[in-house]
Amino acid sequence: MSMQIDFKKELEAASKSMIMIHDPKLLIKLIVRMIVRKLQIKHAAMILYEADRDAYVLSISRGESGIKIPAGFTRFNEESPLIKLFSRKEYKHLTYNRNGIVSEDINRLIWHEMVIKNGNGHEIMDLLHKVNEQMEMLNSVACVPAYYRHKLMVILLLGEKYDESKFSQEELDFFAALASDAAMAIRNAQLFTRLKAQSERNRNLFLQTINVLGSTIEAKDAYTRGHTERVTQYSMAIARQMVENGSEQFDKTFFENLYIAALLHDIGKIAVPESILNKPGRLTEEERRIIQLHPVKGAEIINPLSLPQECYNGILYHHERYDGKGYPEGLDGENVPVSASIIAVADAYDAMTSSRPYRESLAKAEAITEIEKNIGTQFCPLPARAMLELFEKGEA
Amino acid sequence: MSMQIDFKKELEAASKSMIMIHDPKLLIKLIVRMIVRKLQIKHAAMILYEADRDAYVLSISRGESGIKIPAGFTRFNEESPLIKLFSRKEYKHLTYNRNGIVSEDINRLIWHEMVIKNGNGHEIMDLLHKVNEQMEMLNSVACVPAYYRHKLMVILLLGEKYDESKFSQEELDFFAALASDAAMAIRNAQLFTRLKAQSERNRNLFLQTINVLGSTIEAKDAYTRGHTERVTQYSMAIARQMVENGSEQFDKTFFENLYIAALLHDIGKIAVPESILNKPGRLTEEERRIIQLHPVKGAEIINPLSLPQECYNGILYHHERYDGKGYPEGLDGENVPVSASIIAVADAYDAMTSSRPYRESLAKAEAITEIEKNIGTQFCPLPARAMLELFEKGEA
Repeated sequence: MSMQIDFKKELEAASKSMIMIHDPKLLIKLIVRMIVRKLQIKHAAMILYEADRDAYVLSISRGESGIKIPAGFTRFNEESPLIKLFSRKEYKHLTYNRNGIVSEDINRLIWHEMVIKNGNGHEIMDLLHKVNEQMEMLNSVACVPAYYRHKLMVILLLGEKYDESKFSQEELDFFAALASDAAMAIRNAQLFTRLKAQSERNRNLFLQTINVLGSTIEAKDAYTRGHTERVTQYSMAIARQMVENGSEQFDKTFFENLYIAALLHDIGKIAVPESILNKPGRLTEEERRIIQLHPVKGAEIINPLSLPQECYNGILYHHERYDGKGYPEGLDGENVPVSASIIAVADAYDAMTSSRPYRESLAKAEAITEIEKNIGTQFCPLPARAMLELFEKGEA
Repeated sequence: MSMQIDFKKELEAASKSMIMIHDPKLLIKLIVRMIVRKLQIKHAAMILYEADRDAYVLSISRGESGIKIPAGFTRFNEESPLIKLFSRKEYKHLTYNRNGIVSEDINRLIWHEMVIKNGNGHEIMDLLHKVNEQMEMLNSVACVPAYYRHKLMVILLLGEKYDESKFSQEELDFFAALASDAAMAIRNAQLFTRLKAQSERNRNLFLQTINVLGSTIEAKDAYTRGHTERVTQYSMAIARQMVENGSEQFDKTFFENLYIAALLHDIGKIAVPESILNKPGRLTEEERRIIQLHPVKGAEIINPLSLPQECYNGILYHHERYDGKGYPEGLDGENVPVSASIIAVADAYDAMTSSRPYRESLAKAEAITEIEKNIGTQFCPLPARAMLELFEKGEA
């Protein structure tokens, strides 16, 4: 292969757009594939420094000939010959001029060390022999390093060319530039991936904490064991069913907000004395009034979180009714936020199908009949019908 | 200025390393400064597309001559002449060949439109006049656009050269390449910034939810109003004091874990009946046993969060004593995790200085004397001494 100017331009353009690929694995795959396809090289691979693991890893190996080394399998430590050769200052002179190492040069380098150092270059000779072995093992005839802030980041491993010609200095220089771009792009992608993972970890921690927060109420109210979780599951199922039967087009954010609202819908009961919550007999008017404060108390409790309005509404209005006879505000019809009307159905269904201090549980079919009977009075029609559909499908 | 090859190489190298600068503002500053300094141009600025605001903004303006336009001040919409010129397909032919627009060319372009279109190019003529005015206003004699995925991302605004020579095509091509690198680097930096902000938002949401979770206990236990928050503040102050007086070297992560542990130290009381928590008289042995379960219950409650061991320890062991007579495990001396021994001091101090169902509060000085008396028995010496120091400094 002679370095064709078109390929060079093409690769330069490609290496530029590399920085917008933020998936390190995909990026490495593209680079290695590009080298093999465009530059008529039989085999190419990349050794990559992974900062998170503080290790050099053979990231991908591609080509038509030679051993196929499983990607991500082979790890190299600081003592590995190629890593040593390219990262230690005392060996820099061996590869600096050529921007890499070519297997044909190794014997000349060894001879040079012997003559110059008068046989005292044993350590270097030994290293070069090992480098040679490692290159053979990795099926590569040229290796080109790249650095980021003086840290060895990448070694491009190049197999033979199809025309079996030698690598020219121009080619090695070009590969060094490419490897350098790749090193930076990969580092960038690694940082991106790490930041993304961190963001997701924090998001999951938040959601899990919401979960724990929601379940605290069950520690107080023995009769609601599992209630929060079931209401959350029913609410999500109702919303999915509403999307499925075409009555709504909820997006991912809606589902996430509904999930949070459902987990926290009863959190305000934290502020209701246990003596009232767990009272076996009939409640007095005053006790009922205190219990009915729980949606407002719940909204107050989550207020410092500045959650989206949808979460807030789901908690504050889950005891509103379609006919306006609910609490705390007596909203009616379409004025009841949809997340609240979904939780209201889920809450009622679970309340009816589990036993409470003041009554036995109903069978599922009876609860469904009860919901059907109250469509348009207590329940908003769309989520209530979705609940009936779920029951018919055997999913509730 | 003639395009000197050294500057070109230097700029190319610089534009490569741009992608590792993840602060968009700093990046733009560096690019504009580089152009002005290295390329002997009197003035340079950059119009940048900000995806988050869906707007074009004059990001920074730098140079020795001409109007100083405040950075971030001037916004351009899609109807702005330069934006229109570089983003609409129908005007592409006006600037495509030159990779930008140079003010000297504008009259020629207008004339060309008149001749070619036989006077029907009024719209284009009008636009070119307005572009001319805008360039004058922005003190630039050449403007070079850059795109990312066909979206106009950047316009480089170039002032006169110090030698007042015209911009050559080679120079414009070079600036186009530079602008293109800059566009990608800035887009990359913008994505980074957004992802970072999102991660921080999620982290804050998590910490705020922990806060809410910690405060739920106060809804049950009227006598502990504000207790959680004060214990958290004292704990953080004790840890800071321990760092200050040289007895420990806590890192940022330790402080964060201690914060979480302190906020949640009493969360297990959620599982203790209110009748016991708020009992005004003496507790029976059985009632005391139930209350003393709260560290274990607390650790159970937060278990699903998989928080760092330090948080877990702080909650589970905050009632252990230095002499091993605490609960739940009777750990002693250095076996009590340091976060727990800090919370223990903070908790005791706040309990003594606030009133409880079973007794009046002590004065701060009395509480401090009490802590001093119990160093090495109840309290671990290092945090207890830090507490005394805080009191002496008037910080507790």
